Amino acid sequence: MHILVLGAAGMVGRKLVERLLRDGRLGKRDISRMTLQDVVAPTQPAKAGFPVDTIAGDFAVAGVAEKLVADRPDVIFHLAAIVSGEAELDFDKGYRINLDGTRMLLDAIRLAGNGYKPRVVFTSSIAVFGAPFPDKIGDEFFHTPLMSYGTQKAIDELLLADYSRRGFMDGIGIRLPTICIRPGLPNKAASGFFSNILREPLAGKEAVLPVSEDARHWHATPRSAVGFLLHAATLDSATVGPRRNLTMPGLSATVGEQIAALKRVAGEKVAARIKREPDPFIVGIVAGWPRDFDPKRARSLGFTTAEKTFDDIIRIHIEDELGGKFVA
Amino acid sequence: MHILVLGAAGMVGRKLVERLLRDGRLGKRDISRMTLQDVVAPTQPAKAGFPVDTIAGDFAVAGVAEKLVADRPDVIFHLAAIVSGEAELDFDKGYRINLDGTRMLLDAIRLAGNGYKPRVVFTSSIAVFGAPFPDKIGDEFFHTPLMSYGTQKAIDELLLADYSRRGFMDGIGIRLPTICIRPGLPNKAASGFFSNILREPLAGKEAVLPVSEDARHWHATPRSAVGFLLHAATLDSATVGPRRNLTMPGLSATVGEQIAALKRVAGEKVAARIKREPDPFIVGIVAGWPRDFDPKRARSLGFTTAEKTFDDIIRIHIEDELGGKFVA
Repeated sequence: MHILVLGAAGMVGRKLVERLLRDGRLGKRDISRMTLQDVVAPTQPAKAGFPVDTIAGDFAVAGVAEKLVADRPDVIFHLAAIVSGEAELDFDKGYRINLDGTRMLLDAIRLAGNGYKPRVVFTSSIAVFGAPFPDKIGDEFFHTPLMSYGTQKAIDELLLADYSRRGFMDGIGIRLPTICIRPGLPNKAASGFFSNILREPLAGKEAVLPVSEDARHWHATPRSAVGFLLHAATLDSATVGPRRNLTMPGLSATVGEQIAALKRVAGEKVAARIKREPDPFIVGIVAGWPRDFDPKRARSLGFTTAEKTFDDIIRIHIEDELGGKFVA
Repeated sequence: MHILVLGAAGMVGRKLVERLLRDGRLGKRDISRMTLQDVVAPTQPAKAGFPVDTIAGDFAVAGVAEKLVADRPDVIFHLAAIVSGEAELDFDKGYRINLDGTRMLLDAIRLAGNGYKPRVVFTSSIAVFGAPFPDKIGDEFFHTPLMSYGTQKAIDELLLADYSRRGFMDGIGIRLPTICIRPGLPNKAASGFFSNILREPLAGKEAVLPVSEDARHWHATPRSAVGFLLHAATLDSATVGPRRNLTMPGLSATVGEQIAALKRVAGEKVAARIKREPDPFIVGIVAGWPRDFDPKRARSLGFTTAEKTFDDIIRIHIEDELGGKFVA
């Protein structure tokens, strides 16, 4: 089985690739080859039991998608995107990558012909939803994105469903919760603080909290995100039907609950490294974001999270990213 | 005020133009100029109190949209589209006109600059919804189109909302019910029979009913459609907010109720011209279509239908299309 990963150098992409290399298989099939693409060169794995090609370049340039699918990968993970903050600041770039690039990929698959019909796992976002919401957003709630990023993802979902319905591919779109705790350096996502306020204090550093403690949001660990991707790649799409885009399970928590969990898991001293500096710009953005979901369909299709409580989210970060240790 | 109509030679487009020419104004403002575009040349009005330019050509060709908005029309009615059956049969053509063409128009407006921010009234469709549905589809029900046409319209809605949110234009999208009674010749569209079974008997001709009498659907007259367009062009968009796309009011009726109305308005003899020839293919298609809506938002924003009952729908056709007479 040949697997192509677009956006393989991103945070979720790297974790997915690590997991696939470790497993050597996807579902019941052995992996025979992987192709890793990103705008910056993905890391060439030190040792892999099969050939791994790495490709650096913009997938939204004419002709690139055709090359990526020329060898007819069986499964394509499409994680490549301009993040929300950047897509809002740079209108053209956001639409070029997040809409046109995705459409180019789908069209390259469609036009490959000869019965080529790969499983395409696309990472959508809860940014397809925009306030006002019900307290818990159900599976049949409409899309009213309040940012261009969410608009682009919502459009991609519609394309994925139509291309799948017409038999050009076999797509599954998964709306990831905000990933928490996001490892590494802060990026341009407006949601960065949800992770910063946990990750930085655990590393002995200060972090800024730009919103109030009653801000509620929807979270899942990187470990859960990888689990969702693997399940989306292997589940029987006949059980999904024409409604191909699914809100993934997650954990709804307020910032206050996040901080309380940090205190329980790591202690008061760690939590004291959070500095409260309200930022009206961020407050305004976050006010338009989903707080909670009731993702019945994804649960009934077998998608599950690795964590049951916010304490688990912090413990998983300490296990997976910090070698079991934090700066007390 | 300068008004641009794309798709001016279509059935709804022609009726809109006739009404605008007759009124000489839109809301409180006098019309000073109109530009009528379609892929076939729109009829040059015999007499108009202001200049009317007609343009024949494909609006989805590079550079055309820029020319159409170069003189900065104040209101743009965008009715141009490939119809559902054709968009399903010709994948490329449907996406090129219904998605790329609309995006080119929106981008031409966006890039015109210097504060240009026209009202754009876009005709979407109830085809953005796909079965299974609730009995009455509410304003917050999600989009799961089951045809490429509905997918394209749903994407256009998302673009219209995002471009409006970002201040590039002032858009309102309206999801028209199935237009009944559609004037002109019988067409082969799967929905054609909803009009054929009324229009043809009123003209003394036989018509085929391919579904059972309990098939329920959502209707509005051409007169109502024009009323929706005019209201969408003049309503205060500040009252609409970021959710720019609205399901229009309509009348839910079974085919049996349609026929009963025909009997009441035109008599048993006219209704006897309907021949029952069940067609499992049409029955299957119609089973996936919306039956009823609860369009609260549009009603609260002042959108109203010209008809209260299905009898009115038939009477309006006799008035507007048949000069008050039918073949008894």
